[in-house]
Parts: sequence; structure tokens; C-alpha cells
Amino acid sequence: MEKAIQDQYADEFAHCYGCGSLNDDGLHIKSYMDGDETVCRFTPAHKYSGGFPGFLYGGMIASLMDCHGAATAWAAKARTQQLPLARFVTASLKIDFRAPTPTNIEVEVRGKVTEIKGRKVAMDLTLSAGGKLCAEGSAVMVQIPSNKQEG
Amino acid sequence: MEKAIQDQYADEFAHCYGCGSLNDDGLHIKSYMDGDETVCRFTPAHKYSGGFPGFLYGGMIASLMDCHGAATAWAAKARTQQLPLARFVTASLKIDFRAPTPTNIEVEVRGKVTEIKGRKVAMDLTLSAGGKLCAEGSAVMVQIPSNKQEG
Repeated sequence: MEKAIQDQYADEFAHCYGCGSLNDDGLHIKSYMDGDETVCRFTPAHKYSGGFPGFLYGGMIASLMDCHGAATAWAAKARTQQLPLARFVTASLKIDFRAPTPTNIEVEVRGKVTEIKGRKVAMDLTLSAGGKLCAEGSAVMVQIPSNKQEG
Repeated sequence: MEKAIQDQYADEFAHCYGCGSLNDDGLHIKSYMDGDETVCRFTPAHKYSGGFPGFLYGGMIASLMDCHGAATAWAAKARTQQLPLARFVTASLKIDFRAPTPTNIEVEVRGKVTEIKGRKVAMDLTLSAGGKLCAEGSAVMVQIPSNKQEG
């Protein structure tokens, strides 16, 4: 079985509440390569509803896109650089919410890199549920210098 | 003591994981008016770290801005319309991350409405910690039609 991108991070970078394998309280979001894209599948529990029971709160949609975006950037760099590879942090995140996202069914987040420039990786992101596009956006992720441990 | 904006939402709109008073598992983010702005103060526990222990994960920053943004829009409309007032949901959210945000200290999120047009309210948002700007962004929130209960 293929190892998730986040599970390939060095231990010092694996503490994220959203996607860190070493965060015992976290969501453990997992991302994988899928051809030229990346994909993350996650089934948000009912408790993560927005204002109405049964529909996901915006913060979870942003969390999924953010952690998946950082993984997408890391995977793009991992194709060109030797491991271990420093983590990416978010420089910017933009989301357009297109339709309510249900809870308790699997959502699919996809990333597609649009530009790699030095330590920066730009990408487009989508989130869909049951085949319906619910949110789309873009992100710029920046790789921390390998001698720096904050971000 | 002043009542939080989210605690003035009708019960049917109070289930959000981020800010709903009726979500037992949620974060219970609270927003208040502060002159022409709105303010939300929240101390994120250490477990909400990003890749490195001690710094907040991006998803929490987005969650705070998202829930506070919806409250900012609601409060702006509440000045011109009688209660009960339908909830706002997010149309778009854009965040630029300026500096790492520490965990375990109080962060302050501020909103300032820039435009009200029909059911849409646009705003600027900032997030700071210890007086230092850590993230800034903007959002467009849209009020759901009062006869519709999804979003």
C-alpha cells in the first residue's frame, strides 16, 4: 500500500493537528499522488457541521485544503530533491465556496500544481462530495529553509 | 456582560463546530462588536499545532477567520434588520499568512466591513498574537434566504 505524503515527512515536521502522524489528537488527513494530481479522501464526522446539522463548517473545508495543499507542494518537490525534505507552510489560501458540503460522506480534495518557483509552489485545489464540486480555490505554499524550525 | 454575536443566532443556526452555542463538541468561538469593528479572542490549545509544536496550524487560523467573518456579517445586518435574522455562510475566504502564530497564547481576530450589497457582506480580516500581525485576509459572506435551511 502506498504511503501517504504526510507520513513521509520527517518526524520534526509531523506534529500538525490537521495531518501530522505524531499528533495524537489530530485529524490525520492523508494525501496521495494520483497521476499529475494529488488526492485526499476524508469523511468528516457529523459533529463538524456548520450552522445547520448535516453540512460541513467552513473551517474544516479550509483545513482539508490547507493540509492537502502543503502535501501537494511537498510531493512536487520530492520529485526533484532528495529526502529528507523540509516541510511547506502556507503563504496564501483562497477558497470559493460553491455549494453546501454534506457531513458523514467522503469528500475528495484534489490538488494540481500550477507553478514551482524556488521555494514556492502554487496550486489549484478542489473539494467535492458525491461527485459534486462544493469548493474550489488556490494556494501558494513555501518551503521553510532547512535550517529553520518554525512556521 | 455583552452577549456574543454567535449567541444571538436563532437555535436552528447554532450548530456550527467552530462557533455554535449548541454544538457540544465545538470550539465555541465568540465574536463581539468593538466600535466599527468586530473582535474575537481565542487561546488555541497546544494540540492545534502546525508542523512544529508551538505554532498554530493553518486550518485553525482559517476556522477563526471564517466563523468570525460570518458573525461580522450578521452583526452588520443586525444593525439594519429586525431579529430573528438568518445566518450568513461563506462565499469566499482569502488568507495571507504573514508570520507563524504561536499556540497557547490569546490570538485576536478583527473584522471590518468594507461593503454591504443585498445579501452579501464583504470584509477585511486580521489575526494577531501578542500584538503581532500573523495573518490577514478578506471574506465575502452571504445571508441565506430566510426560507432555506441549508448552507
